Amino acid sequence: MEKMCDPWQECMDFAVKIARKAGEVVCDALKIEARIMVKSSPADLVTETDQKVEAMIISSIREKFPSHSFIGEESVAAGDKSTLSDNPTWIIDPIDGTTNFVHRFPFVAVSIGFAVNKEIEFGVVYSCVEDKMYTGRRGKGAFCNGQKLHVSGQKDITKSLVLTELGSNRTPEVIKIVLSNIERLLCIPIHGIRAVGTAAVNMCLVATGGADAYFEMGIHCWDMAAASVIITEAGGVVLDASGGKFDLMSRRIIAASSRELGEQISKELQIIPLERD
Amino acid sequence: MEKMCDPWQECMDFAVKIARKAGEVVCDALKIEARIMVKSSPADLVTETDQKVEAMIISSIREKFPSHSFIGEESVAAGDKSTLSDNPTWIIDPIDGTTNFVHRFPFVAVSIGFAVNKEIEFGVVYSCVEDKMYTGRRGKGAFCNGQKLHVSGQKDITKSLVLTELGSNRTPEVIKIVLSNIERLLCIPIHGIRAVGTAAVNMCLVATGGADAYFEMGIHCWDMAAASVIITEAGGVVLDASGGKFDLMSRRIIAASSRELGEQISKELQIIPLERD
Repeated sequence: MEKMCDPWQECMDFAVKIARKAGEVVCDALKIEARIMVKSSPADLVTETDQKVEAMIISSIREKFPSHSFIGEESVAAGDKSTLSDNPTWIIDPIDGTTNFVHRFPFVAVSIGFAVNKEIEFGVVYSCVEDKMYTGRRGKGAFCNGQKLHVSGQKDITKSLVLTELGSNRTPEVIKIVLSNIERLLCIPIHGIRAVGTAAVNMCLVATGGADAYFEMGIHCWDMAAASVIITEAGGVVLDASGGKFDLMSRRIIAASSRELGEQISKELQIIPLERD
Repeated sequence: MEKMCDPWQECMDFAVKIARKAGEVVCDALKIEARIMVKSSPADLVTETDQKVEAMIISSIREKFPSHSFIGEESVAAGDKSTLSDNPTWIIDPIDGTTNFVHRFPFVAVSIGFAVNKEIEFGVVYSCVEDKMYTGRRGKGAFCNGQKLHVSGQKDITKSLVLTELGSNRTPEVIKIVLSNIERLLCIPIHGIRAVGTAAVNMCLVATGGADAYFEMGIHCWDMAAASVIITEAGGVVLDASGGKFDLMSRRIIAASSRELGEQISKELQIIPLERD
């Protein structure tokens, strides 16, 4: 009965299935040497597996839902536009954590978000080496391998463990801002900073309560779409890095276990100027 | 037969058994709220579990090997000296990654190293949430859950993934050096920096080949002892942060998948002045 009331349940079930299948391909590919190519900087890597897995995901979904739209990391890299319309849109990162993938650092995720009328309806993040399937359905909670997720609820920044990344941008001025933001947080002081190398897994760790917040600037909609609804359905919030309303196409995010904590973090951040998705 | 030739095999078997038992206590304690106390800085935390688990480990070992010596993180915090003599010495960190433990960030390890004549004979690191038992016996290889470990062998710093930590020191001058070291590495450029919040697990990740190097200053002998032999037995090297000979009591380390890479990293590091263990 409930299935009939939820117009997107069929899509979500399919997303879980295809994410698991894609994750298996990614995990298999970890066993062989990856041929690495460079994108926007010497630290922005891509492999044939990213491209192959994205093509596989999109063609499977397109076959089943031919009227839907797609935004995929590798399709955009190949020249497609990343325009978010009101049409049901699948937002896909075949391998979130490509540098981890290249190094076999054990955090790589398949990330599939689904938006309708520009609102994320569900997100699926499959951290394949860990075999952790994270899901979030708007209004219906977030889960990891079937277990309901709850953020820590921490409101006090001085007691917080914060996740972020140093990123793949190697422009000295950008690195300076990234590090000075970290410096300001450390000096508050906070309990610590961690970085596992994928936006999606970082955000899912906040959803589990294992960390209190994650922030980053310079990432893309496909890094955030799926995990943003997992965070909010686990009781957390997503904000813009400025502390304002989260904008999926703005390339920046604070995901926090409470609005209070997210806003405290935003006050410490110098904004990095970025072209929108 | 081989057992008879190795005078320390019995100690190592016992270390694995006690590390697993201690890890179970740590994992159980993760399920209940931790009462947190502060040590050297607002970010240097300790819990009753650290103290309880260390006491449990030491009393078990002392009962079996009454003539042996001990250096334990919490015993030293309570006033014991951390003197490394030629006597067989167990070097113990009951919870490497206490801040992770407090936050339930899923990387916490029991670390047990064993030195004779000031040389590490074996090391056991049990990453209990992941249920990964890392072991290294001098001259006999390193293993994780029975599987032999090999470092990546990477020699080219521009292709390296490097692990480090921002640490628990909140002195502004120290934070400045920590961040400027990271900045110099990023600008080389390297592929990236990751931080999972425990020295022992970071080093074991290098041993698996999942990252190419780890460096840190400000840690202690109990953070490094066990994992240092796991790294070298996986084919890696340990160096002082200056690039010279590794000194267990110096509070600093570069653990790398090759001497070349370790030395390249050392050239980028400004040394943080530290009191020895």
